Amino acid sequence: MDKARQYFNCNARERACFEAGIKLATVYHQFVGTPVSMENVETLERAIEKGVKIQPFVKEVTVKIDRTRLREKSDEYDYLTLTGSMLHVLLKIVYENVEVIAEMRYIKEMDYPLMMIKEIRES
Amino acid sequence: MDKARQYFNCNARERACFEAGIKLATVYHQFVGTPVSMENVETLERAIEKGVKIQPFVKEVTVKIDRTRLREKSDEYDYLTLTGSMLHVLLKIVYENVEVIAEMRYIKEMDYPLMMIKEIRES
Amino acid sequence: MDKARQYFNCNARERACFEAGIKLATVYHQFVGTPVSMENVETLERAIEKGVKIQPFVKEVTVKIDRTRLREKSDEYDYLTLTGSMLHVLLKIVYENVEVIAEMRYIKEMDYPLMMIKEIRES
Amino acid sequence: MDKARQYFNCNARERACFEAGIKLATVYHQFVGTPVSMENVETLERAIEKGVKIQPFVKEVTVKIDRTRLREKSDEYDYLTLTGSMLHVLLKIVYENVEVIAEMRYIKEMDYPLMMIKEIRES
Repeated sequence: MDKARQYFNCNARERACFEAGIKLATVYHQFVGTPVSMENVETLERAIEKGVKIQPFVKEVTVKIDRTRLREKSDEYDYLTLTGSMLHVLLKIVYENVEVIAEMRYIKEMDYPLMMIKEIRES
Repeated sequence: MDKARQYFNCNARERACFEAGIKLATVYHQFVGTPVSMENVETLERAIEKGVKIQPFVKEVTVKIDRTRLREKSDEYDYLTLTGSMLHVLLKIVYENVEVIAEMRYIKEMDYPLMMIKEIRES
Repeated sequence: MDKARQYFNCNARERACFEAGIKLATVYHQFVGTPVSMENVETLERAIEKGVKIQPFVKEVTVKIDRTRLREKSDEYDYLTLTGSMLHVLLKIVYENVEVIAEMRYIKEMDYPLMMIKEIRES
Repeated sequence: MDKARQYFNCNARERACFEAGIKLATVYHQFVGTPVSMENVETLERAIEKGVKIQPFVKEVTVKIDRTRLREKSDEYDYLTLTGSMLHVLLKIVYENVEVIAEMRYIKEMDYPLMMIKEIRES
């Protein structure tokens, strides 16, 4: 049971989409700017996943950071900070009988890290 | 026309709810932690509003930061950093023929800054 | 008088340099990721300045965001989010009789947004 | 050798203090706002440490998040987001022959998460 339900004026599908949007923007706006190199990229991916996982109604989440742009640390300045276009996030929200699969990934033709709803399922 | 529409698999109401969730989480996760006192609170409110306003499908947005917890600057350390529970955000998303009114505010009974959908209208 | 002085084990010049480092990193890690376009760039610059200004020992601060990379909003997706390499920050810390002038700017030869100490003056 | 040295106008002790300030503020302003509960607190500590560790001149860093305020997840809303007062950070910067030990911790008497220089050593 969702103890916040009284504050919402929408159906379960709409609610699940709303929650999906919240989580994708959390990843983007919380973690963009974090220092990242080959040395910490995997730890950072797992930490982002675990941070999102404890938010309401998240059942699964996978975060991949594009390694092709990362540097091996050869001097003190050889690292980047995370940008939206390096992020690929896939997550599943479950709210009541509704599952939403949402994704964030860089769309080359738009030159934009797009957050999108891939699928809504009802059981 | 929405040039990203091909990437979505949902109706206009669900899309508008998704976009609303993105914007509320942007406010929270981008700006929580920003230094704030009576001296800059209004400037910060306007800057958050203008930052959200340029994101896709936002038609209106109002940000209020709770002033009762802010300090007048009497020494160098008299300021706070923004927390979620100080924020009240109200916004309108318009996607195609759908309007969504969404809100973030601190709910005392939950001890939680809740993001919620207040209303969905179709024209 | 600095009420935190008892917690420090360094001279006034070293303390002023430490404070300068804190402020430049605040700008970077708080605001990188913020949505920015020609429409809100000036508001954002002023908000960053005012946020830094209320932190301890900041006497002056100027923030410039590189406009050459910003887009005029022609469709819903025409905006960027702030990156470190778009930022130019200049600030003056005053601690006791010491002034530190510090700067953050993108250094092309290093492909790196460098934070640096330009000058330390004593009176 | 530090390839950015030409941009600095200060001695090695002052530079090391500046670098220490940058790193403590990175932790605060990058990670405050991140969702945290008993389930992800340790992963988050390690990710913050590894993110700081790849920044220039950091030799050691320990991050502890105050567990007394975290919640066990009993419903969807049982988590917090990280605040400055929950953070205890201890780090060592080495620049040339200088070591700086710096710390951030919540000081109760000041009601403030203070960043401080504990010790400067030369070899």
